[in-house]
Amino acid sequence: MNFEQEMKKKVEQIQNTIMSYLPEETGFQKTLLEAMNYSMRAGGKRLRPLLMMETYRLFEGNSKVIEPFLAAIEMIHTHSLIHDDLPAIDNDEYRRGRKTTHVVYGEAMGILAGDALLNLSYETAAKAFSLEPGNHNVERAFSVMAQKTGIFGMIGGQSVDVECDKTEFSKEKLEFIYCLKTSALIESSMMIGAILAGASDEKVKVIEQIARKVGFAFQIQDDILDVTSTMDILGKPINSDEKNHKTTYVTLNGLERAREEVNRMSKEAIALLESLEEKNEFLTDLILYLINREK
Amino acid sequence: MNFEQEMKKKVEQIQNTIMSYLPEETGFQKTLLEAMNYSMRAGGKRLRPLLMMETYRLFEGNSKVIEPFLAAIEMIHTHSLIHDDLPAIDNDEYRRGRKTTHVVYGEAMGILAGDALLNLSYETAAKAFSLEPGNHNVERAFSVMAQKTGIFGMIGGQSVDVECDKTEFSKEKLEFIYCLKTSALIESSMMIGAILAGASDEKVKVIEQIARKVGFAFQIQDDILDVTSTMDILGKPINSDEKNHKTTYVTLNGLERAREEVNRMSKEAIALLESLEEKNEFLTDLILYLINREK
Repeated sequence: MNFEQEMKKKVEQIQNTIMSYLPEETGFQKTLLEAMNYSMRAGGKRLRPLLMMETYRLFEGNSKVIEPFLAAIEMIHTHSLIHDDLPAIDNDEYRRGRKTTHVVYGEAMGILAGDALLNLSYETAAKAFSLEPGNHNVERAFSVMAQKTGIFGMIGGQSVDVECDKTEFSKEKLEFIYCLKTSALIESSMMIGAILAGASDEKVKVIEQIARKVGFAFQIQDDILDVTSTMDILGKPINSDEKNHKTTYVTLNGLERAREEVNRMSKEAIALLESLEEKNEFLTDLILYLINREK
Repeated sequence: MNFEQEMKKKVEQIQNTIMSYLPEETGFQKTLLEAMNYSMRAGGKRLRPLLMMETYRLFEGNSKVIEPFLAAIEMIHTHSLIHDDLPAIDNDEYRRGRKTTHVVYGEAMGILAGDALLNLSYETAAKAFSLEPGNHNVERAFSVMAQKTGIFGMIGGQSVDVECDKTEFSKEKLEFIYCLKTSALIESSMMIGAILAGASDEKVKVIEQIARKVGFAFQIQDDILDVTSTMDILGKPINSDEKNHKTTYVTLNGLERAREEVNRMSKEAIALLESLEEKNEFLTDLILYLINREK
């Protein structure tokens, strides 16, 4: 099986796991549940659960305790997309080739569907407590998930990004945003995989460093694609950063410098991964694929 | 010490605990942190942490493990207030006598401050894992908190409430909303107190029933005050339900019937509380005070 076939198979498995944790669309709150599932089913690369699962495998994890976390991390990611797209924030009408949640279900339901997915991520991850009661690694994974999502992670980064639309801008601030807004959730994914598999604190720290570089490179690649790709390929409008007068790594440093940075980060991440005695060849290929992707 | 003095002292203690878990307002994400703290410091009755603490005392809990949960439940409550007040939902400009969060910090920051508080509640509660690693009661408390906040609790109830602004309305649906939107968080508060103190499953169920009745009566009392109180006393505009063409227990059943229902629910809650062998006189007084409050 080549990388692309293997990737397809793994994404399918993760997709099934995620779907099994989505709520049934019944009861008085049916619209809310539909709006949540609409967003979760929109597809996407399932990159974060995939990285979590492969890091779990790297450290030879082999229990069902990982499954609720695979779904939970994708719920957090989808929560952030729904709220980012809202009229008061990025005001985006398309995402992954489909209308955004608030366009289909209205703004109030968009806000609540985002809230509900963020909360459901914790409700879902908490199912791991019943699978292995009193397992402190599950508790640690939970704490990391909450920290990396919050004010010193994804949501904190997003708040600075929102403010930067109207304030002065520096290289330092841009790197802060990329670290928090994009890398934090990738760090969370890979660290949870390592922690649940029982990796040492020292190794969890190496994984965090790898993930930070992967997230950073991933975000710069996103900026590059925004100016070099087409709407057909991306499934969302291109040149949206320019349209929104948004400062990105590309507008700040130019396309060539951006490509060099992606290349450097990518090499550093792989070198760190290879420094570990544990091996997962697919994880190496996956990181290279994600960083050098064309959509 | 009479009830009011004791109440004042207890609220002060809880207030100090809550404040100790709020983030310092520094770094690039300063505005977000300010918006969160602005909302958390607005005051309010601190009813939910108070009920949690007194239920914990009822079952003779006496560890610091409760403290992160006291702060967490108030963060969840404040999250819901910030998002309810947003232009796309209730569009309220005043709350607890002060301008609402989105009025002061803008709509984008209002959305993100609400998200950040919801997430911080889990990050904060997760600190209990370090206090008592592997204590399955902490894990159970965590699960209850997530369930009662989510799609089958507070957020689910809010979504039906939002839709009811434009759809037909029934007594059944109104009761569903009150149960989820208001009672769920009170159930969560009291159940967490009981669980952390080591109460049996059977007793936790009795506590859940008591809390449901307290929440229901509390919400009807809120509807009553909306038509009988003044803005000076409430700190927010009165007759807002009528202004928003909102169906409430009062508009559906009339003021007299509403008062009877508060009375009945209140008696049933107290009777259930007295059926337990454990005693906490202050908790009984507190429930009566909350249900019969005038603001």
